Amino acid sequence: MRYRMNEALAVLERTPDVLSTLVEGLPPGWIEGSEGPDTWSPYDVIGHLIHGERTAWIPRARLILEKGETVPFEPFDRFAMFRESKGKTLTHLLAEFAALRQSNLETVRDWDLAEADLDRQGRHPQLGAVTLRQLLATWVAHDLDHIVQIARVMAKQYGDEVGPWTKYLSVLNR
Amino acid sequence: MRYRMNEALAVLERTPDVLSTLVEGLPPGWIEGSEGPDTWSPYDVIGHLIHGERTAWIPRARLILEKGETVPFEPFDRFAMFRESKGKTLTHLLAEFAALRQSNLETVRDWDLAEADLDRQGRHPQLGAVTLRQLLATWVAHDLDHIVQIARVMAKQYGDEVGPWTKYLSVLNR
Repeated sequence: MRYRMNEALAVLERTPDVLSTLVEGLPPGWIEGSEGPDTWSPYDVIGHLIHGERTAWIPRARLILEKGETVPFEPFDRFAMFRESKGKTLTHLLAEFAALRQSNLETVRDWDLAEADLDRQGRHPQLGAVTLRQLLATWVAHDLDHIVQIARVMAKQYGDEVGPWTKYLSVLNR
Repeated sequence: MRYRMNEALAVLERTPDVLSTLVEGLPPGWIEGSEGPDTWSPYDVIGHLIHGERTAWIPRARLILEKGETVPFEPFDRFAMFRESKGKTLTHLLAEFAALRQSNLETVRDWDLAEADLDRQGRHPQLGAVTLRQLLATWVAHDLDHIVQIARVMAKQYGDEVGPWTKYLSVLNR
């Protein structure tokens, strides 16, 4: 499917509500459970998404628009949330994510990007040349990837309790 | 994590809203796109969940409570939605799923199951002896499995548009 600005924004603006509906108010086991050592809980994932809103998507898009390929993106800190989420409730994090997302989507809408703008290129520190369209499509796919992760981590909390049904549930076999 | 009745119900009752928030009102490409031949679109998955509400979870639980292991479950038709969803809009299906789920959760609450009831056994046509607890835990994990699937299928619609970021998005590499 081709990238379309209005469709991407429609998916991006739903994510905060999807995540709140999925996890807000559930007991701690569902929020803090992970897939084992060095894997993330739903709580960790929300913190990661917040860090992306603050430091990745919009700053990188702005860098493309203002500097093109001349200045590479800042590397993304995949572990920032272990510091930044400390002491915050899940409800706090969800509200923070929702507010940042709303503000970031307003920024993108205010840019009023043309198709030609989406072809403009920036430089990723590892991946090299990337277009603004690729960055924005990745923002969408990244949201969905982490919705996948949260639902998968939750399902795995019942990995033992489903008994012989394990083999029919593909989510438990990854 | 151990199965707890109130926690399972809390997750189950969220699923209709999670799915509506994720897909209702999106353009057709997001609803009807799949992962290739013989894979399901979000639209197909909602139909599958409806068929489960009608024919699997509650009828099987009732069979355990009323007949124990003496009468095996009816086999589940994994392709019923290709007939049953025909001609229905996604909005129609989402409303149908929400109504069935609400009614089914009321049924379970009315049963007022004790821990000992959860140990009661039924007979799965392929898996053999299963407990009511395992059936109900599977209901929860099955919801989450299909949330995983829908978000993954949606992400894959941008599989080309993300360009070199493909390798960082684990959802695109399954």
